[in-house]
Amino acid sequence: MNPPAITHRFERNTLIRFSHCDPAGIVFFPQYLVLFNGLIEDWVSEGLGIPYAELILKRRIGMPTVSLNCEFTAVSNMGDEVTLGLSVQRIGGSSIGLALGCRQGAEQRVRVAQVLVTTSLDTHRPIRIPDDLRAAMHAFDL
Amino acid sequence: MNPPAITHRFERNTLIRFSHCDPAGIVFFPQYLVLFNGLIEDWVSEGLGIPYAELILKRRIGMPTVSLNCEFTAVSNMGDEVTLGLSVQRIGGSSIGLALGCRQGAEQRVRVAQVLVTTSLDTHRPIRIPDDLRAAMHAFDL
Amino acid sequence: MNPPAITHRFERNTLIRFSHCDPAGIVFFPQYLVLFNGLIEDWVSEGLGIPYAELILKRRIGMPTVSLNCEFTAVSNMGDEVTLGLSVQRIGGSSIGLALGCRQGAEQRVRVAQVLVTTSLDTHRPIRIPDDLRAAMHAFDL
Amino acid sequence: MNPPAITHRFERNTLIRFSHCDPAGIVFFPQYLVLFNGLIEDWVSEGLGIPYAELILKRRIGMPTVSLNCEFTAVSNMGDEVTLGLSVQRIGGSSIGLALGCRQGAEQRVRVAQVLVTTSLDTHRPIRIPDDLRAAMHAFDL
Repeated sequence: MNPPAITHRFERNTLIRFSHCDPAGIVFFPQYLVLFNGLIEDWVSEGLGIPYAELILKRRIGMPTVSLNCEFTAVSNMGDEVTLGLSVQRIGGSSIGLALGCRQGAEQRVRVAQVLVTTSLDTHRPIRIPDDLRAAMHAFDL
Repeated sequence: MNPPAITHRFERNTLIRFSHCDPAGIVFFPQYLVLFNGLIEDWVSEGLGIPYAELILKRRIGMPTVSLNCEFTAVSNMGDEVTLGLSVQRIGGSSIGLALGCRQGAEQRVRVAQVLVTTSLDTHRPIRIPDDLRAAMHAFDL
Repeated sequence: MNPPAITHRFERNTLIRFSHCDPAGIVFFPQYLVLFNGLIEDWVSEGLGIPYAELILKRRIGMPTVSLNCEFTAVSNMGDEVTLGLSVQRIGGSSIGLALGCRQGAEQRVRVAQVLVTTSLDTHRPIRIPDDLRAAMHAFDL
Repeated sequence: MNPPAITHRFERNTLIRFSHCDPAGIVFFPQYLVLFNGLIEDWVSEGLGIPYAELILKRRIGMPTVSLNCEFTAVSNMGDEVTLGLSVQRIGGSSIGLALGCRQGAEQRVRVAQVLVTTSLDTHRPIRIPDDLRAAMHAFDL
């Protein structure tokens, strides 16, 4: 019934923990967005080879989210081992369109389209995506 | 430049706190969704007159989110007094379409379209929106 | 059986929300510490008359916690209206000892002794408590 | 100057993420307690061999915290790879005393003494520590 889960270009497994779940016993949906934020961090550090903490703290480049589109198609319970994944959908001047997903095996749980913008953390204004980031991203095109 | 902020049918003021903000000094976006979740709670309890905790704990009716569409149009900083608002956009058999927003005065910060579904917390399956909830919701139509 | 709840010098009522609670249906204890952090913020801004956001963002003075001692004596459920309170226990050179509590009416839920230190946010080193902060704090002595 | 870090009987490495940090750029202290909660989960599942989710969801046994004593001795920054550790300090009838710590290499960041109680999730009353849990715990005595 559910759409089949997509396999993404960058994937990491994670455990659904007690702290992610609500009184209904299932993931409280903002926690998915915290988990996806961690995935983006790992993708930048490990996938793109640019330590995320250095990007923020040393180079003072932020990657805030400007738009977010989520579909929650099946619930996740505490103790589930899920796979979080990410692919690049579109690279603009200062914006990066990502497709993200959470699946357990072939069952899709969440599907997300998210647009980030690279900004100066001093002005909070968009800046052009740095060349090293841009070059590394192409390996993760959908 | 930004689209003008919409005034919603149910509004509450809230303070942007230290705990909402990230190392960039601005609201970490999943925290907006936690804040909006609190607004929905207040709307059900105070706007619709149906104590939210009773709905969940006694009547075992959940209101999970099935889709979410957010635009983050301006940043919020620690110490900002913002207004969170909600209007009803569509009432279906078991789904409720909400328009939500965060603004500071006339400046829009976040705009959200969110679809909730009423479910049985025993089966996590959709159930028809209870009559008392449905009747009370019409006062908040956009 | 439980020790009687203490009435504090600075108090605020708050609602226990869905987002504070865990799959056991009760407050997930780190959420109490987030709530108390908000109380300390309100105390600084409203009780001491020194806007907390200005202290952090403009004066670059932090108030990190160096020690924390909590007793959780009764559970809180979603929907509970609780009272959070704070009194000053000890004012040192750069450290501030606070007594905090969460109660519902006369029933104590949580009791906390917390020590904060004023620091420079540029060096993360302790600095002497600023005079305006120190002077204002004496009104909240236990 | 700082006390030397203790090596614990059960340890896991973890990354300090953007979402753990506050506008001061360091770990927001309640996030340490969320991280330690995850460590306790892993210890029960992997160390004791009793899947934590089953304990909660199937056997309806909770492990709420009744007392907590923390010292924050050095700050952690985004991007730090830290080691979280746990040892058993005391096993009572229904209470479990744990020593926990966060260190980066030999530098201690946080030291915690935490007491949990096994409870029935139906009554929220203490129950005797189940025999399988008790037997497995002795391998982690300090």
